[in-house]
Amino acid sequence: MKKLADIGLIGLAVMGENLVLNMESKGYTVAVYNRTVEKVDKFVNGRGAGKNFIGAHSIEEFCASLEKPRKVMMLVKAGQPVDDFIDMVIPHLEPGDIIIDGGNSHFPDTIRRTEYVESKGLLYIGTGVSGGEEGALKGPSIMPGGSPDAWPHVKEIFQAVSAKVESGEACCDWVGEGGAGHFVKMVHNGIEYGDMQIITEAYQLMKELLGMSNDEMHEVFKKWNEGILDSYLIEITRDILGYKDENGEETVEMILDTAGQKGTGKWTGISALDLGIPLTLIGESVFSRCLSAQKDLRVQASKVIEGPKPEFNGDKKQFIDDIESALLGAKIISYAQGYNLMMEAASEHGWNLNYGGIALMWRGGCIIRSVFLGDIKKAFDNNPELPNLLLDPFFKQKVEEAQAGWRRVCATALANGIPVPALTSALCYFDGFRSERLPANLLQAQRDYFGAHTYERVDKPRGEFFHTNWTGRGGDTASSTYNA
Amino acid sequence: MKKLADIGLIGLAVMGENLVLNMESKGYTVAVYNRTVEKVDKFVNGRGAGKNFIGAHSIEEFCASLEKPRKVMMLVKAGQPVDDFIDMVIPHLEPGDIIIDGGNSHFPDTIRRTEYVESKGLLYIGTGVSGGEEGALKGPSIMPGGSPDAWPHVKEIFQAVSAKVESGEACCDWVGEGGAGHFVKMVHNGIEYGDMQIITEAYQLMKELLGMSNDEMHEVFKKWNEGILDSYLIEITRDILGYKDENGEETVEMILDTAGQKGTGKWTGISALDLGIPLTLIGESVFSRCLSAQKDLRVQASKVIEGPKPEFNGDKKQFIDDIESALLGAKIISYAQGYNLMMEAASEHGWNLNYGGIALMWRGGCIIRSVFLGDIKKAFDNNPELPNLLLDPFFKQKVEEAQAGWRRVCATALANGIPVPALTSALCYFDGFRSERLPANLLQAQRDYFGAHTYERVDKPRGEFFHTNWTGRGGDTASSTYNA
Repeated sequence: MKKLADIGLIGLAVMGENLVLNMESKGYTVAVYNRTVEKVDKFVNGRGAGKNFIGAHSIEEFCASLEKPRKVMMLVKAGQPVDDFIDMVIPHLEPGDIIIDGGNSHFPDTIRRTEYVESKGLLYIGTGVSGGEEGALKGPSIMPGGSPDAWPHVKEIFQAVSAKVESGEACCDWVGEGGAGHFVKMVHNGIEYGDMQIITEAYQLMKELLGMSNDEMHEVFKKWNEGILDSYLIEITRDILGYKDENGEETVEMILDTAGQKGTGKWTGISALDLGIPLTLIGESVFSRCLSAQKDLRVQASKVIEGPKPEFNGDKKQFIDDIESALLGAKIISYAQGYNLMMEAASEHGWNLNYGGIALMWRGGCIIRSVFLGDIKKAFDNNPELPNLLLDPFFKQKVEEAQAGWRRVCATALANGIPVPALTSALCYFDGFRSERLPANLLQAQRDYFGAHTYERVDKPRGEFFHTNWTGRGGDTASSTYNA
Repeated sequence: MKKLADIGLIGLAVMGENLVLNMESKGYTVAVYNRTVEKVDKFVNGRGAGKNFIGAHSIEEFCASLEKPRKVMMLVKAGQPVDDFIDMVIPHLEPGDIIIDGGNSHFPDTIRRTEYVESKGLLYIGTGVSGGEEGALKGPSIMPGGSPDAWPHVKEIFQAVSAKVESGEACCDWVGEGGAGHFVKMVHNGIEYGDMQIITEAYQLMKELLGMSNDEMHEVFKKWNEGILDSYLIEITRDILGYKDENGEETVEMILDTAGQKGTGKWTGISALDLGIPLTLIGESVFSRCLSAQKDLRVQASKVIEGPKPEFNGDKKQFIDDIESALLGAKIISYAQGYNLMMEAASEHGWNLNYGGIALMWRGGCIIRSVFLGDIKKAFDNNPELPNLLLDPFFKQKVEEAQAGWRRVCATALANGIPVPALTSALCYFDGFRSERLPANLLQAQRDYFGAHTYERVDKPRGEFFHTNWTGRGGDTASSTYNA
């Protein structure tokens, strides 16, 4: 009798190939299928040659090759293809079998699909998988959510292939019900947008204001990667700035300065707006990509609009240290905002999220992996009810220490016309967050003035609403219907 | 035979009452109906006594009291109530009759309802109405879109009741098909969020950094209202800062500093993210309201997190002028961003928007009315194809003149720990917009490094994509499926 596969994977793009090679290397037999069937043979006879793979040429053959309960994992393009494959495999599955979506699906789709698949007597997992192509091969961060009953069946294999932290703990644990796994992955990607954006702002400052060469910046990032900023993105930036092509040309300088944003970063921003959470750093990061994409308009504007000529006369070494402080301060804010968003979503959707566990999942394997995430894990280990990262003693101290340099960087950048939207947005949030009193009292007065929207008072309990007839004209009727 | 009404209105909240009083004062007979029918009699025998109103006690009676083609206008809460009333009135209408939604509906709903109502042989208008309760009474800004065939039937009455600019032109014109009217109203509201936010930041700076009294600020706003910032919101801020209650207490200082944001501001931000348009100032304004709402957390944070003690040693008068420059600069950016969003939406939805006409509609009657909008009208009169407001010679000059003071304000605020998220976000956008080269090249290198996402090059035509094997490890396969 032919050996059955421990798990099956649909979708042999780079990520899929690497993930199944990873699984096989851990001792699992994996069935593989791809819509373009030639890819199956190419893989099984190519990178997969001599290994424990079962190449399937039809969905029926694919499902028949799986050990029960069957685990059918998809790594296909988010959207309609996921729904299509779900409907293609369902007729070949039996109660208790598990369908797993490992792509970048939008969490409301995963909520819907979990309900749909469960209604067919099957189980569903929507899981974030992060780490890019290299991570998929060597150990990604895996963030599964969906039907809780599915978790025990995939736990062993998922944790075997996932990244591990120094202590040996797997960067994979159960996130929560329904769309929780994909939500957390979405926030991860939003944070990734933010981490990348602040690094590019640091690069812009060193290049345009300090006039540093890429070799010099390479050294700076190398040094930063040995300190509190030690992280994958700082590391690859070090490498990128040091990379020269066969002609000795600095490749990064030949790359067009336009970035796309039609993905999870956008969703994170929309989710924050929907839930009413101030996610400013990620929001600015997404918008920065949008502005970068308006290249023709920028070129046109650069020819006619005058600005200051960047000029730096201070202590260059100190300023580089200040940039490190700005990166740290902004990064703390970004994670504080991201966790704020996850807490609100958990409350909204009834998910019981393990915040320290999430930090551990992100600690290794994924794009935002860093030493920093170990400190976040500690913060939630110390206080699982921590309402905001900025109130943790360690992060409070770090952000306080960072602020002087961070302020100098932002003020200097604005004076010199270097755009640093994420670094400054984070600093403004920090100053707003630590303000007992914000000027929203004036805003509420304006709303009451023009729309009779009413306001609460500092000398009355919350929930009591007052209206002032500011003009002496008009009525005393308060509005409940309009937001004009 | 009893006289029929020229138009009918459902929904007698403050806005509805005031709008029908306005219509009646222009010589129209108006039928009125309200779900809570007692309100009808209360109004007809109260504020409407002795005037040309027909109070209806049922939808049937209401529809029967209207001249053909019937014009049924709703001013009810956005959402389900609008759909409910549409279905309630349809059985009592005849082909060619017009249903008008004057509430703050979300534009995709208006697109859907236009199609639905047209499928019944009727016509539909979704119109923004802005100006608050006083505007509704004295002349609001009206932004109608929907079924083009409906416009000739309502044009006279809408333009009669709308605000007028000095030259006599009405602040009401046809915006476009489907959801165009509500989209433009939504952007109006987003801009309103931004205008309000930057004013509160100016107030916070004068109060916390310059230590000014409300009476002193009252004088500053009074002066600003006589210059380029001359606008309704500056005017009412002047009044609010000068307002004292019967006990001589400054009412604005007794108002709780928490603001809501569950409305059109949020939608504007989401729409910008969806369309990929950098709408940073409005985004920060919405997020600032979210942060203001986290009052308990802020109070807690204010007790433990240290920041700089605000201290100003410069020329106070100069700094107040600088704040005026900052407000002007930021305002120009906000409108440039808002127009960018409308242009993208028009392209996406196939609307033929009249950008100068929109400025004229906003010029009077509504919350954001200002002299400034007259200059925007001129910019589009001079060049109807203007791709961005910042490229208009007048605004380019104004923003260039404003930037020195604007930069001083932002740099000083950041150094002193005063949160000015909208003013700085706008400045960073300005600096990004006028940058031929942004650091997105590094970001694209990062994406290609970890995800094989490929990049375009400055020395090759657009649309050609390249991948670098940055590490020497991994494959040369480019990814087309993932955004991990």
